[in-house]
Amino acid sequence: MTLPAGVRLVELTAHHDDRGTFTELFRATWDTGVEAVQWNLVHSRPGVLRGVHVHVRHDDYLTVVRGRAIVGLADLRDDSPTAGAGCAVTLDADSPAAIAIPHGVAHGFLFPEAATHVYAVSHFWDPADELGCRWDDPGLRIPWPAEARPQLSPRDAALPSLAELREQLARAAVPAAG
Amino acid sequence: MTLPAGVRLVELTAHHDDRGTFTELFRATWDTGVEAVQWNLVHSRPGVLRGVHVHVRHDDYLTVVRGRAIVGLADLRDDSPTAGAGCAVTLDADSPAAIAIPHGVAHGFLFPEAATHVYAVSHFWDPADELGCRWDDPGLRIPWPAEARPQLSPRDAALPSLAELREQLARAAVPAAG
Repeated sequence: MTLPAGVRLVELTAHHDDRGTFTELFRATWDTGVEAVQWNLVHSRPGVLRGVHVHVRHDDYLTVVRGRAIVGLADLRDDSPTAGAGCAVTLDADSPAAIAIPHGVAHGFLFPEAATHVYAVSHFWDPADELGCRWDDPGLRIPWPAEARPQLSPRDAALPSLAELREQLARAAVPAAG
Repeated sequence: MTLPAGVRLVELTAHHDDRGTFTELFRATWDTGVEAVQWNLVHSRPGVLRGVHVHVRHDDYLTVVRGRAIVGLADLRDDSPTAGAGCAVTLDADSPAAIAIPHGVAHGFLFPEAATHVYAVSHFWDPADELGCRWDDPGLRIPWPAEARPQLSPRDAALPSLAELREQLARAAVPAAG
């Protein structure tokens, strides 16, 4: 599996004792590539898919704290050494890890079971930086589970094709991969 | 109820849709008084109490994402307008809120049910900045539930009295309340 350039998988360590667990999720000094200015919390019902989205500017840093997510990734940066690569990574709260997703890498999150994730963003929410395409566009090369018939939001269900998204991105001028 | 000076309760807004919920937990621009350099995740079993702890330097920003926590607070800053005040605040994931706890305000977290919380700290972990006292020292004036017989870590169970903690704090010189 080729991870898009700049995507980082960060193994986290859950410290267990009789009371429960303690896990460091993020330190500003870790080499995540994400300067976190905002943190969000998302609960998802089983069978939900959020995405596929891509940002021109902002970077994401995400971890699953309950349940499991299949993270689909597709490198839409023309100037990236991994341009065109698609893959899927599973994040499971039982073996905690975080993933840093740089701008220009499209991403979708499929929740096979009820899940909670928290994520940081490098820029405040900006509707102009929320582009996306149909989660199952074959051009993404994301190996979603064959049986997936996910529940989408009306907005995600109405997203355009990857070809159309690429035209929008060209107009928005994705900054260089870093 | 008098909240110790500088303690902020931040109401959060859960946006619900068919897929689940989305909640902004923290923005660097919010007036929390906490400059977050690290985020941690804690799962707690029912009946656990963590604390009572106090920090000479670092500030905490905490929110409950599953279950419920009773947050006990006691103002140990001699120069604070609310010096000596103790109180208890309930945080419930069902009506999300966050609490910012400045250094010098002692705090303990009682989990009446299984709970998950995430919290940010303004300084990286430093064992020299981890002081504390017995959770049920009456001098704290924290109105814990009368029936509480919480499960503590061995370290928390061995913490000294509030009087002894105050001596340690005097030696460590708590910075002015702010």
